[in-house]
Amino acid sequence: MDRGSKAPIHRQIYTQIRNMILTGDLPGGTRLPSTRTLGMELGVSRITMVNAFQILTSEGFLRSRAGDGTYVGNEWLNEAVTAPEVRRPELSSRAGLSASTRGSDLQRQTSPSWNPEDPESFVASQVGIDLFPTSVWKRLIGRHSEEQSIEMLGYPEALGHRPLREAVADYLRDSRGIDAAVEQIVITSGAQQAINALMLMMTDPGDEVWMEEPGHIAASAAMLANGCRVLPVPIDECGADLAQMPNELPAGRLMFLTPSRQHPLGVQMSLARRMDWVAWANEQGSWLIEDDCDSELRYRGSRLPSLYELDRGQHVVHVGSFSKIMFPSIRVGYVVLPEDLVDSFATAISVTGRAPATLMQAATADFIREGHLNTHVRRSRKTYAQRQEALLRELRNQLGSFIRAEAVDAGMHVIGWLPSTVDDQRLAAQLADKGVYTYALGDYLLERSLPPALLIGFAATDAGHMPDAVNYMVRALRHDGYSC
Amino acid sequence: MDRGSKAPIHRQIYTQIRNMILTGDLPGGTRLPSTRTLGMELGVSRITMVNAFQILTSEGFLRSRAGDGTYVGNEWLNEAVTAPEVRRPELSSRAGLSASTRGSDLQRQTSPSWNPEDPESFVASQVGIDLFPTSVWKRLIGRHSEEQSIEMLGYPEALGHRPLREAVADYLRDSRGIDAAVEQIVITSGAQQAINALMLMMTDPGDEVWMEEPGHIAASAAMLANGCRVLPVPIDECGADLAQMPNELPAGRLMFLTPSRQHPLGVQMSLARRMDWVAWANEQGSWLIEDDCDSELRYRGSRLPSLYELDRGQHVVHVGSFSKIMFPSIRVGYVVLPEDLVDSFATAISVTGRAPATLMQAATADFIREGHLNTHVRRSRKTYAQRQEALLRELRNQLGSFIRAEAVDAGMHVIGWLPSTVDDQRLAAQLADKGVYTYALGDYLLERSLPPALLIGFAATDAGHMPDAVNYMVRALRHDGYSC
Ligand SMILES: Cc1ncc(COP(=O)(O)O)c(C=O)c1O
Ligand SMILES: Cc1ncc(COP(=O)(O)O)c(C=O)c1O
Repeated sequence: MDRGSKAPIHRQIYTQIRNMILTGDLPGGTRLPSTRTLGMELGVSRITMVNAFQILTSEGFLRSRAGDGTYVGNEWLNEAVTAPEVRRPELSSRAGLSASTRGSDLQRQTSPSWNPEDPESFVASQVGIDLFPTSVWKRLIGRHSEEQSIEMLGYPEALGHRPLREAVADYLRDSRGIDAAVEQIVITSGAQQAINALMLMMTDPGDEVWMEEPGHIAASAAMLANGCRVLPVPIDECGADLAQMPNELPAGRLMFLTPSRQHPLGVQMSLARRMDWVAWANEQGSWLIEDDCDSELRYRGSRLPSLYELDRGQHVVHVGSFSKIMFPSIRVGYVVLPEDLVDSFATAISVTGRAPATLMQAATADFIREGHLNTHVRRSRKTYAQRQEALLRELRNQLGSFIRAEAVDAGMHVIGWLPSTVDDQRLAAQLADKGVYTYALGDYLLERSLPPALLIGFAATDAGHMPDAVNYMVRALRHDGYSC
Repeated sequence: MDRGSKAPIHRQIYTQIRNMILTGDLPGGTRLPSTRTLGMELGVSRITMVNAFQILTSEGFLRSRAGDGTYVGNEWLNEAVTAPEVRRPELSSRAGLSASTRGSDLQRQTSPSWNPEDPESFVASQVGIDLFPTSVWKRLIGRHSEEQSIEMLGYPEALGHRPLREAVADYLRDSRGIDAAVEQIVITSGAQQAINALMLMMTDPGDEVWMEEPGHIAASAAMLANGCRVLPVPIDECGADLAQMPNELPAGRLMFLTPSRQHPLGVQMSLARRMDWVAWANEQGSWLIEDDCDSELRYRGSRLPSLYELDRGQHVVHVGSFSKIMFPSIRVGYVVLPEDLVDSFATAISVTGRAPATLMQAATADFIREGHLNTHVRRSRKTYAQRQEALLRELRNQLGSFIRAEAVDAGMHVIGWLPSTVDDQRLAAQLADKGVYTYALGDYLLERSLPPALLIGFAATDAGHMPDAVNYMVRALRHDGYSC
């Protein structure tokens, strides 16, 4: 008996007896001592023993015969499953059981580790949480969290909460110039669920799909998990370059693009290139997935029209997310689809996990409707521009001989190019060990190679703190023997 | 110009000119009239025209030459993508583009339609929302919705919010007798995300998986979407029957089971059968997925030990959900996994859409911790028992000659058996047309046949309203010519 355990004593006794039956130590037909005797032996009250016996009897492990005490049920005679020695064996030692191929692939992928309590995070996807108007948010959430309606508490609508779909349609028209009907919009649990569901809907295992190189790793992960072969398309200063793809290649089923701000390199795709891709999709009968996740965060130059608008033939699915313009834990995003694909897409969403919590959708709708989103985006854009400037200044002053970084026109990170002999993935891991979090450009490549570099995020670090933050990075680098 | 449209006038002009360029109506090199002239022609102010031209120029559609007016950019010369006649063509008419095989499958699946405003919902998965303590919920949500921390606003932890994982571990131990370490628990966006991610992790396309027949449709949908072949295992009054599977069949990679309350038939799997399945998994090296989604809602008999507890060899993954014991739009569930599988599973979750919103997780943790969940389950159990009784009484009194239903020991619906000549799927569709929502048992079958029946949910309808609700159903049936 473990009196320190949180489990009640009768439950502990129950578990022990049950395990003795399951392992065959107490074979079927065994007569047990009375609860009084057993209680005395174990040093517990009779009522505790009676409780334990009652559960065992109700579950069929024990049988009581009137006037004749309690027996182990007969079905336990020889059927006991042999208990293995260890309680938590390694996957490999589990008898006869092997992981599936794609299961093993998943096991090899490690998610970038990140401990929120660590001091200096330059993680590229981390927003400036100090900027988010949480008191407004609390009010909007509070407004909906007490509603006792089927609409709020029942299964979320398959296409998403109608008021949010309407708010997104208006937002896209007013702030992005995208003219889409409410009926074309489906709410998702972030861009990630959208991209994965699109793969499920648009591809079959073995299909070839095209992907920016370097590109959004989480998107390639969804492609691979859905059994697709991923063909990398190189990026230059105008964006993904169709001309560099060999002619004899089979046309991909789709191409994944981040035209507003190429992830991770940061360039905006030129209009001519956009037209190339739209023409390609129309000629080949392929899809374009346009991930527009943070086009609002642009500091210089104007936003070009989206592929969705340029395409007149309906080969573009436009994907958006509130992770960067609100905050990542909100888990709300959306897609704009040709209307005839909406139902298949909604089915793909319902298979992979359904729409996000209605409460989050309802509050997001109000956040957009009441103008808070626009205010927040404007404020973030201004502050992020200052933070980027501060980062670039400190990198130049403190690390100029080691890291070369130029301003980006959009997004939340710069590319810090390293001396060509440095292994960026190893360097990022070493920094992470010291609590300095960045991503290695090498992680974003499938095949081709690029010079080593780090993605250094600026959005989450106050400009005033930037000198110290970069100094911390410098010390970490020196500690690991880098001369900088 | 459409002055009734919500888009500002300059945006409307911009869109029209851009479309003329994209369709080739305004070829590259064309010189445009001045903004003053054009403004007068269109009856808008000059400043409106300047605004429109500015966007078009910044996006590269127009070029202005100093002192020489404004021209359409040269790249638009012959490159215009031809605009198709219709703006929203059907999938089949989209040039050259065909849906993938699994995409077409998705298109064929229709999600059960359900309009929350309709009067009589006997939908099996609908909880009694009148019972949920929304004022408590509002307080817990409010507590976390203003927190301005990276933990609350940044990307949710891959394995789920730690306090919720701890609360689930305690809940499972105290209320279910399952002894699992916090490290074995991963939070998901409902049972559905869990089941789909398990398929991704445990199977490869073409693998054989076993499934209860009749069984949980959404689980088979995830199996099929992941490219698996689904072999049906018949259910009898003791649960899924291994003995009925032909010996020469290849062992499935996994078996999906609902031992606590077979979905949809409602029987609890016997202990002997549980041991059979555990032995099967250990001998074949296969997995068991144990969906325990509403084992708390048991009205008669005691809960038997879970497969997870009975298995000593770690071949069981235990899946739980808060959809039925709290409310479906919460989108929070969990799995208990062998520890060595936790990382692969978390990767599968992050590929398919990541963990649910941290706010929902944090409030759910408090709801469990502070005892509200146990109180609510106790109250729901009592009220649902009364609602079931009322439903059975009314079915007997008003529909006794047409529908034969027996009490279920657990869950939120009864099986209403129909005369053998009736087509249950057609009947359910006819009822739905009149606003009476049920599910047809036929929808839950993959291959085998069972007599026609409806799943009739009782949890969402107040006992006092049951006579009217059933009467509404009777009238709908008579209207469709059924003699009852
Ligand atoms: C290219 C890209 N798309 C989309 C997202 C947003 O994903 P989600 O909405 O799933 O958080 C990110 C976040 O880092 C991203 O880098
Ligand atoms: C058998 C079964 N499992 C699980 C669930 C819950 O699914 P989720 O948690 O995705 O809402 C249901 C809901 O109807 C169900 O019937």
